[in-house]
Amino acid sequence: MINSYAQQLGSARSCIRELFAYGQTLAKEQGAEAVCDFSLGNPATPPPNGVQEALAHLIATEDPMAVHGYTTAEGALATREAIAASLKQKYGFEVTAKDLFLTAGAAPALTAVFAALTIDEDTEFVAIAPYFPEYKVFSHVWGANLTVVPAKEPDFQIDMAALEGCIGPHTQGVIVNSPNNPSGVVYTKETLEALGEVLTRLSKTYGHPIYLISDEPYRELVYDGKEVPFLPSIYPNTVVCYSYSKSLSLPGDRIGYVLVSPFAWEAEALRFGVAGAARSIGHVCAPATYQKLVAMCEGEMPNLAFYDHNRKMLYEGLTALGYECVYPDGAFYLFVKAPGGDAAAFSRKAKELGLLVVPCGDFGCPGYIRVAYCVATEVIERGMPLFEQLVK
Amino acid sequence: MINSYAQQLGSARSCIRELFAYGQTLAKEQGAEAVCDFSLGNPATPPPNGVQEALAHLIATEDPMAVHGYTTAEGALATREAIAASLKQKYGFEVTAKDLFLTAGAAPALTAVFAALTIDEDTEFVAIAPYFPEYKVFSHVWGANLTVVPAKEPDFQIDMAALEGCIGPHTQGVIVNSPNNPSGVVYTKETLEALGEVLTRLSKTYGHPIYLISDEPYRELVYDGKEVPFLPSIYPNTVVCYSYSKSLSLPGDRIGYVLVSPFAWEAEALRFGVAGAARSIGHVCAPATYQKLVAMCEGEMPNLAFYDHNRKMLYEGLTALGYECVYPDGAFYLFVKAPGGDAAAFSRKAKELGLLVVPCGDFGCPGYIRVAYCVATEVIERGMPLFEQLVK
Repeated sequence: MINSYAQQLGSARSCIRELFAYGQTLAKEQGAEAVCDFSLGNPATPPPNGVQEALAHLIATEDPMAVHGYTTAEGALATREAIAASLKQKYGFEVTAKDLFLTAGAAPALTAVFAALTIDEDTEFVAIAPYFPEYKVFSHVWGANLTVVPAKEPDFQIDMAALEGCIGPHTQGVIVNSPNNPSGVVYTKETLEALGEVLTRLSKTYGHPIYLISDEPYRELVYDGKEVPFLPSIYPNTVVCYSYSKSLSLPGDRIGYVLVSPFAWEAEALRFGVAGAARSIGHVCAPATYQKLVAMCEGEMPNLAFYDHNRKMLYEGLTALGYECVYPDGAFYLFVKAPGGDAAAFSRKAKELGLLVVPCGDFGCPGYIRVAYCVATEVIERGMPLFEQLVK
Repeated sequence: MINSYAQQLGSARSCIRELFAYGQTLAKEQGAEAVCDFSLGNPATPPPNGVQEALAHLIATEDPMAVHGYTTAEGALATREAIAASLKQKYGFEVTAKDLFLTAGAAPALTAVFAALTIDEDTEFVAIAPYFPEYKVFSHVWGANLTVVPAKEPDFQIDMAALEGCIGPHTQGVIVNSPNNPSGVVYTKETLEALGEVLTRLSKTYGHPIYLISDEPYRELVYDGKEVPFLPSIYPNTVVCYSYSKSLSLPGDRIGYVLVSPFAWEAEALRFGVAGAARSIGHVCAPATYQKLVAMCEGEMPNLAFYDHNRKMLYEGLTALGYECVYPDGAFYLFVKAPGGDAAAFSRKAKELGLLVVPCGDFGCPGYIRVAYCVATEVIERGMPLFEQLVK
């Protein structure tokens, strides 16, 4: 007798993983040239040189018992201090080590935050389309509901009236993800200030804070000199879930953090709640070697030039072919209107040509496909004629 | 409004962590010589040389995108194949890669297994005293109950009649931990065969498998040439939760696995259940660098001679002083009857002398203390006169 929800979650592969696995099989059977895989958000550049060097140095010179030993559950003090100093320097925001809890990436950070904020079976979280489908899993596991605000076309900022309509007395948190997966859009300062205003007002209306949960694995991936506003500076009841997966090209090594804003109304209770939730799901400490590594590498930047080159090539190429693309300010995804309007059908047709793109129904935008440009540039070159064939 | 259970879990430090923190403060204030800290189960020897070398080699020579990239959720195929081959060689047991799911250590392995096996609010798990207190947390978080079989003195094997009395129609699993934390006892083959017989019979009585959940972070830490029987060879419905924390002295790096015996009656459903439960709590993959590392280091052994030396010194020393100690076959703990019978009072008195030992009330044995001998040998030398003072 096995839990049926867990069983179903474990047996149903996501559409992305399905496509990726298909691509691998095809490449094995017919050669790598037979596949143009734009399905996965896996960084396509190695970690910055500074990261590689720091890691080798750490392994070669530090006391191995200190490198590999347990840290406290919240993480090594030196690392949390380094992150706090870096946030202060970048954003002028006063964070201290106690506000940070290191995790094995953003996913367990999010699930711990959702757990800490779920108080009964009426608890609601709100996501804004397009949104990362796992938010549903991370809220449902605790018995909470996830309500989705429809996407605001064509700019994919936030429809504030629609958002307000989705918030009720049981809403505990609103999740934002900017730069966004899958749209590549960065929420503007105006959007975020309006969001802060709505949440401040409704928190007062309902007599409890409505948290802004900011999922930020793409914070550093932004182009054209744009800036990603720092949410804790805009709204006090903010919780940031950060990951170094994309910024340092360390996705498999699982290192990130939860930052509970010290200005949150219930900051201490929420910090304890996150720590307790993490403990209950088997968090002992974030991977220790990588805790030490990020302390040495705060400020290292991803290879933006590489992604930017791909971004322009793909955006300009597809636009020239007549595809309607959302202009991508950040992350490494191009969000494209499916010709004909049915993204699932388009993705199936593309798959027949070995071109793998993700239909975004699960992200709350069934008319769009996601084209991940964190790929070798030659994949874009090979893909272009296939996109041309498909649009005709 | 924060989840009160999570908040309480996050604010209440375990007695062990409390003692450890006290020791650190004391050492800072009065010098390291003022403290004899036997509180934590933190390996006191560096990783075996082979591990250090393999890690440096991996970082220096492998493609960084392969080292640091995502793996599938269940873990790199090469690693799972290496583990399967090693289990086959050691125990003559047929495991394949599909039976293994790599995790960030034993704690998230356990919580995923508990989640997969919790089917409703009547679900029960059974632990055998002395037991690791977090089992309570890992079952309660899913709404399951934990029943504890009283300890069998003086040998701390299993009282089968008492165990049978604790199993009912809603029992989904029995957790064993051998070599045991905190007793140091290794369950004999006879004990485990009797356990298998009871579970087979009761599984038939209740019409569903009662799983044996084996928490095995100490599997390799066993002395006097003793052997730890391999449970899947004894009972089909076995799930092993393994960690490399102690065997390779990598506790902070969080690497381990779940092995679902291929002979379990519901093996496939349980594999899916574990994968789904892990996914729901934010597991993406086990730390990738360390996945690759353990594939290279299967068969490396911990520094048994070091622990064995400490073990004998501590056991012989305390026994000579008149302490009643359980003979420690494995792990790195000595289980000692508290003089006077009140372990909490003894631990408090010891603490006044800077001697930190863990009272085992939370482990289900309130008359015992745990003395962790994974410490520098000089700590034992300095501790002995304090133990002498306390017994008088």
